[in-house]
Amino acid sequence: MQEQDTPRFERYRMTLAYDGTAFHGWQKQRTAEGVWLRTVQGVVEEAVCRTVAQPVQVVGASRTDAGVHALGQVAQFDAATRIPTERLSEAINSRLPHDVEVREVAVADHHFEAISGARSKQYRYRIFNARRRPLQHRHYVYHCWWPLDVGQMNEAAARLVGEHDFTSFAGAGSPRVTNVRTIFACYAERHVDAHVDADEVHIVVSGSGFLYNMVRIIAGTLVDAGRGAVNADDVAEALAARDRRMAGPTLPPEGLWLEWIKYE
Amino acid sequence: MQEQDTPRFERYRMTLAYDGTAFHGWQKQRTAEGVWLRTVQGVVEEAVCRTVAQPVQVVGASRTDAGVHALGQVAQFDAATRIPTERLSEAINSRLPHDVEVREVAVADHHFEAISGARSKQYRYRIFNARRRPLQHRHYVYHCWWPLDVGQMNEAAARLVGEHDFTSFAGAGSPRVTNVRTIFACYAERHVDAHVDADEVHIVVSGSGFLYNMVRIIAGTLVDAGRGAVNADDVAEALAARDRRMAGPTLPPEGLWLEWIKYE
Repeated sequence: MQEQDTPRFERYRMTLAYDGTAFHGWQKQRTAEGVWLRTVQGVVEEAVCRTVAQPVQVVGASRTDAGVHALGQVAQFDAATRIPTERLSEAINSRLPHDVEVREVAVADHHFEAISGARSKQYRYRIFNARRRPLQHRHYVYHCWWPLDVGQMNEAAARLVGEHDFTSFAGAGSPRVTNVRTIFACYAERHVDAHVDADEVHIVVSGSGFLYNMVRIIAGTLVDAGRGAVNADDVAEALAARDRRMAGPTLPPEGLWLEWIKYE
Repeated sequence: MQEQDTPRFERYRMTLAYDGTAFHGWQKQRTAEGVWLRTVQGVVEEAVCRTVAQPVQVVGASRTDAGVHALGQVAQFDAATRIPTERLSEAINSRLPHDVEVREVAVADHHFEAISGARSKQYRYRIFNARRRPLQHRHYVYHCWWPLDVGQMNEAAARLVGEHDFTSFAGAGSPRVTNVRTIFACYAERHVDAHVDADEVHIVVSGSGFLYNMVRIIAGTLVDAGRGAVNADDVAEALAARDRRMAGPTLPPEGLWLEWIKYE
């Protein structure tokens, strides 16, 4: 019999996609009664633990809220396993429910940190912009029946690009050292698809990092611009004011999609 | 006080869209224990009855199965109401759940018959054609991970166009006078949309009328052609054989969409 080497501990980097509708967000949590809620982290961690047959902690780069979707969430975990890396994603997927999927697993540097190592993230906020009901899209878009002027939205969006103090665009959340973030790109685009009955306006935002509810507040502010309630100067003024009451409303979570996260 | 005329009975024609996921199909039905199931007809009939404050029977042109979706189902009902026709759809919609919507209501000729008057119908069968999971699309597409050759699918599809006896493409159902139907158009098209993570092949079929499960069997046969299991000659042979066992499998309901129904 051949002697078996103990497998080495590796740090793995994982890319995940999920439908946030039936999850209480990314982060594991229990109710006041101690009942574990169904969360993406909880479901994925259980599948990884069962796959590598050892306790594993899965750390995600973005703590998406309940109802928020992801195409490219990034997470890390440490494990010592003999399962070849190229077969890990299939093995984990076979233990995952239909609303979450591992898209990729790779061995990362031992110093890789999903949260602090992220250099840029892109979110997309999908708005169903028609009088009719979104029906099949209803859990994946925000329904806005005012006609939206994408040109006006883009004029306002341009004022948010760059390094700014985004206090006006931050929900009440945990205290942080600074509210300064850099937005690399922010724009709106119309998206029509008769084949799937979609008539949408998408708001795309990429940046170095985001404050709590920041993209949903940006989306609410740009919708205000798109329907003519405010103009680009008002948005620039709201940003300068560092006062949450000056920006637009926080749009609901179901329209928000985490698209990708990039590292050095 | 002004004398009120009794409103006239009118025949109304209604266009409906719905997400079939949470419905037991179009047609009203009860379980063996006498419990009414949640059906589109049942839900719409209740909303119309409450709107016009009288008992109403809603007759739909197509009895879509459980899980099948519609963008343009057509239905008729008779009612005597003072509600202006242009406000009826909004009034009915306010009483409908989020997964069904009246798109249009119009006064029709008293001889209008939603079922027997239909001259052509178009269905679309959506196939999610990628290795990854459909996630947000999972209730609206069939997941096929074999690569599909759309050219081969179209060669096979062309053999189905025209007037034929479609016995080979009919599920076991209620007896009918004839299995001859006319297919006006039948084709496949690739449909890529990175913004909504869709990589789909759609099969579009329009015809004078359809036998039970006919579109789902056509879709199953064309998928067989697309993955190289059969060729166009095999499909022509299957059609000529008038034998259900010669055609491909019946694909699941969730990929099927009723697009429109036309009248004279």
